[in-house]
Amino acid sequence: MDKTRAHASQPSKPPQAVLFDAYGTLFDVYSVGLVAEQLFPGQGEALGLLWREKQIEYTRLVTTSNDGAHYQPFWQLTQAGLRYAARRLKLTLTPEAELQLMNQYRHLSAFPENREVLQALKARGIVTGILSNGDPEMLGIAVRSAGLDGLLDHVISVDAVRKYKTHPEAYALGEQATGLRAAQIVFVSSNSWDALAATWYGYQTLWVNRYAQPFEELGTLPTRTGSTFSAVLDFFPPAARP
Amino acid sequence: MDKTRAHASQPSKPPQAVLFDAYGTLFDVYSVGLVAEQLFPGQGEALGLLWREKQIEYTRLVTTSNDGAHYQPFWQLTQAGLRYAARRLKLTLTPEAELQLMNQYRHLSAFPENREVLQALKARGIVTGILSNGDPEMLGIAVRSAGLDGLLDHVISVDAVRKYKTHPEAYALGEQATGLRAAQIVFVSSNSWDALAATWYGYQTLWVNRYAQPFEELGTLPTRTGSTFSAVLDFFPPAARP
Repeated sequence: MDKTRAHASQPSKPPQAVLFDAYGTLFDVYSVGLVAEQLFPGQGEALGLLWREKQIEYTRLVTTSNDGAHYQPFWQLTQAGLRYAARRLKLTLTPEAELQLMNQYRHLSAFPENREVLQALKARGIVTGILSNGDPEMLGIAVRSAGLDGLLDHVISVDAVRKYKTHPEAYALGEQATGLRAAQIVFVSSNSWDALAATWYGYQTLWVNRYAQPFEELGTLPTRTGSTFSAVLDFFPPAARP
Repeated sequence: MDKTRAHASQPSKPPQAVLFDAYGTLFDVYSVGLVAEQLFPGQGEALGLLWREKQIEYTRLVTTSNDGAHYQPFWQLTQAGLRYAARRLKLTLTPEAELQLMNQYRHLSAFPENREVLQALKARGIVTGILSNGDPEMLGIAVRSAGLDGLLDHVISVDAVRKYKTHPEAYALGEQATGLRAAQIVFVSSNSWDALAATWYGYQTLWVNRYAQPFEELGTLPTRTGSTFSAVLDFFPPAARP
């Protein structure tokens, strides 16, 4: 069992569903750094970090500006982020290199404990799903490619509302898909901003802090914090654990 | 005259007002790096960069989540960003060091060409102002401290709508204060995301690209780009230039 720290008192009833963020949480967005390093020796890590940062920034810019009128699907924003990052680092991104990096983004490594934890949740009868900024095609490929397709009841993309997390319409999709209220659902994310905003929205939350980073300093903490995905099992009473 | 590149055809009538972003545009947000370097030798630049990054991120998180219900004034978000940045870099931020850095943020250096350009605009009868994420108190101190108070017709803070740029309600304040339409106003920012979103909103825009960085890769360019603030004078026909 993963070591966790409870930030809030345990609710009286165990949650009925667990929804996971995908990019950064189920799938390792920095696994592209290896290919990037082969293409741009000595710059792979910097490219991977800046790419991810711009990708997230772009989701926010298109969501906030003009009430989402500038929405572009996640795949396009991911490509735009890559192009920006390469230009900023003064790397020549040939069409071949871009294709290679983007293809890598389609098939990101999944974190090793994913399957086991999802199986444990399914065995217990817990509803499972993804609630992600990724567009449906990207998510479909990533889920199949990681062999997770039989373990997820819902694969929810914000593309349905054309607004990215942390917009409330994006988080609302989790309630709509499951027919539950946010307070009955655990939302799991490795992205601290996502765990924060999901807590604001009303979900029970687990922040998976894989790299021992500080949480956001905005006065709200996630319900729980753990160092791996397995910590989600701590939301369920010991007797009822799978 | 600053070298500029026009990205769009010149509108037939010259603009009637110029509004400036404050932090990063009029005031050098990285001038805190010197004090940071004295406090944390070898880490000042990293702290300055991460602090600025988190400050901006926090404006976006509180604006997008739950329709702005988690708004905090810019001063508080600036402090939260500093605390996060220090923790992330494993620096011990004593209350004294925090106070010293925050005080520095109140009295940021102004870029040297500011006064001259504002004087040239005023001499020509152009309406001038600031449209900033800063809260009114921060802006008042910064403007007085830089000796710009006689040169600005409007000092507009997004605090009035409790939503940060790039939210359209924030950009709308520029139209409301001047009584002009965005298309009649030049909005000037050194922050590429701000120049981008102001262009989306409908302003004529100047992106002041002081550090030769790439523009955002989202398919929209600012009306003009210049390497200093002085490039704003290129919006006005040569004969009418002050």
